[in-house]
Amino acid sequence: MIQIIPIKGIPIIKEGDDLGGFMVEAAESQGTPIQDGDIIVVTHVAVSRAEGRTINLDDVEPSRFARVIAEEYGKDPSLVEVVLREAKSIVRMGGGHIIAETRHGFICANAGVDKSNVPGERNVALLPEDPDLSARRIRERIRELTGRDVAVIISDTHGRALRDGEINVAIGVAGIDPIRDRRGETDLFGYNLKVKRTAIADELSSAAELVIGQANEGVPAAIIRGYRYPKSEDATSKRLIRPKEKSLFI
Amino acid sequence: MIQIIPIKGIPIIKEGDDLGGFMVEAAESQGTPIQDGDIIVVTHVAVSRAEGRTINLDDVEPSRFARVIAEEYGKDPSLVEVVLREAKSIVRMGGGHIIAETRHGFICANAGVDKSNVPGERNVALLPEDPDLSARRIRERIRELTGRDVAVIISDTHGRALRDGEINVAIGVAGIDPIRDRRGETDLFGYNLKVKRTAIADELSSAAELVIGQANEGVPAAIIRGYRYPKSEDATSKRLIRPKEKSLFI
Repeated sequence: MIQIIPIKGIPIIKEGDDLGGFMVEAAESQGTPIQDGDIIVVTHVAVSRAEGRTINLDDVEPSRFARVIAEEYGKDPSLVEVVLREAKSIVRMGGGHIIAETRHGFICANAGVDKSNVPGERNVALLPEDPDLSARRIRERIRELTGRDVAVIISDTHGRALRDGEINVAIGVAGIDPIRDRRGETDLFGYNLKVKRTAIADELSSAAELVIGQANEGVPAAIIRGYRYPKSEDATSKRLIRPKEKSLFI
Repeated sequence: MIQIIPIKGIPIIKEGDDLGGFMVEAAESQGTPIQDGDIIVVTHVAVSRAEGRTINLDDVEPSRFARVIAEEYGKDPSLVEVVLREAKSIVRMGGGHIIAETRHGFICANAGVDKSNVPGERNVALLPEDPDLSARRIRERIRELTGRDVAVIISDTHGRALRDGEINVAIGVAGIDPIRDRRGETDLFGYNLKVKRTAIADELSSAAELVIGQANEGVPAAIIRGYRYPKSEDATSKRLIRPKEKSLFI
C-alpha cells in the first residue's frame, strides 16, 4: 500500500526561508515524521518563493515585441515580457496562450510563469533557475536535519497537447530516477515488454496533487510513502524532456 | 491522507469473467473490502479481456495498405491492419510508431492496441468498445454485490507529445467527474484562479499505476481511498479529449 500524506501547517514561504526545514518540522508536528524511502513532492511555487524567483510586473519594462504580442492576444504586456525573458523558444501562440520552451527545455504555457499562490496582484513566480539543484538542496537539508534518505520532486501544473485539463508533472528531481525503464521485464505471460518507460516522477507528482490540489488550503508539499523507487544520485529531470529528434507532434 | 491499495489475487481474466465480482472478492480476501467513496482503477487490458476484445493476429488478413505501411515502418502487417481498423484517423507515422485517433477520440500509439498482458504470442487487446459503459457496468456490479457507492476508472498507458516516458491516464469513467473545475476558486492570497481545470481522472490513473505498474505481478486494479472526488452520474471520459478547435499542437 502507498500513502499520500499532505504536509500541512507550513507557513507561507518567503524569500530566504528554509523550506526543507519547514517541511521536516511540519511533518513531525502532524505526527508523520519523514522516513527513509519517502518521496517528498513540493510545488515549484513554494520553491520559487523561497529562492526569490518572483517578480513584480510593475517593475518590468515590456519590449516593443512584448507590447505587440500582448495587444494581439489580449494579455498584460509586462507578463508577456517576463514570459519572453523566461523562454528559449516559442512553440505556439494562439487562443490566449503562449506555449514556450523554457531555458530548461520544458514546453509549457507561459514558460512556467505562474500567477497563482504568489502574494500581490502584480507578482508572478518564475520557475527555479535549476530545479534539479533546488531538489538536491532540499534533499540534503532533510538529510542534515533528520538523517533520512529521501527522494525530492519539484512539481508543476502542465496542460497537455493531446488531452484536456491539466496534471502535475516533475520539473526537478533528486535521489530518484524519474523514468522507470521496464524494457527488459516480461509481462504476465512471459511476453517481453518492448516499449515501457514509465515516467514515474510525473506519476508521483500527479499523485501528490491529489492532496496538494486545493488551491486555497496552503498545502505546498506531500509525502509519498511505500513506493519503492529506483534510486539515483545523479538524477535529472532532463530525462523527462522528449528529445526534439524523436518528436512526433511538433 | 490518501491510500493507494493494490487489489491482489485477481485470477487471470478471460472472456466472460465477472471482473467486478473478482475485484470485490479479492479486496475482501486481502482485508481491504471496498468502501463508499473508494475509487477503483482497473487497467483496460483486464476489461478488454473480460469483454472478449482480444484478437489473434493469425486470423487477420492485412489489406494492401497495411502491408505497405508495415514494410515501410518494419511492423507486423496483421498488427498494422488491426491498428487501422481501430483508428478513426492517423495523426502521425514515424520512428516505428503509428499515432492514431481511436474511434472514441483518444490519440495514442497503435490506436490503443496492446500486446502486453494478453496470453499468446499472437494475441493483442483492443480498447473496450465503450470504456465509459464498461466502467458503469463494473460500478453497478460492485454496488449490486456490496451496496457501496464507488467511482470506477479504466486506465491505459499513454505516451506524451511533449514529454518522454509514459504515464497512465483514464479512458473510461463512471461516478466521477474526470475534470475538477477550479476556475471559481481563489488561491492562498485570494487571487482568482483563471485557468485551473485539473484532469483528476488522469492523476488518479497515474497514482494507481504506482501499485499496478509491475508488469509481471498480475495486479490489474487498485483502490484509491480518502480522496473526495466530484461525483457525477453522467460522467464521460470524452471530457478528457481536447477539442480539435482548441488544439495548439496538431
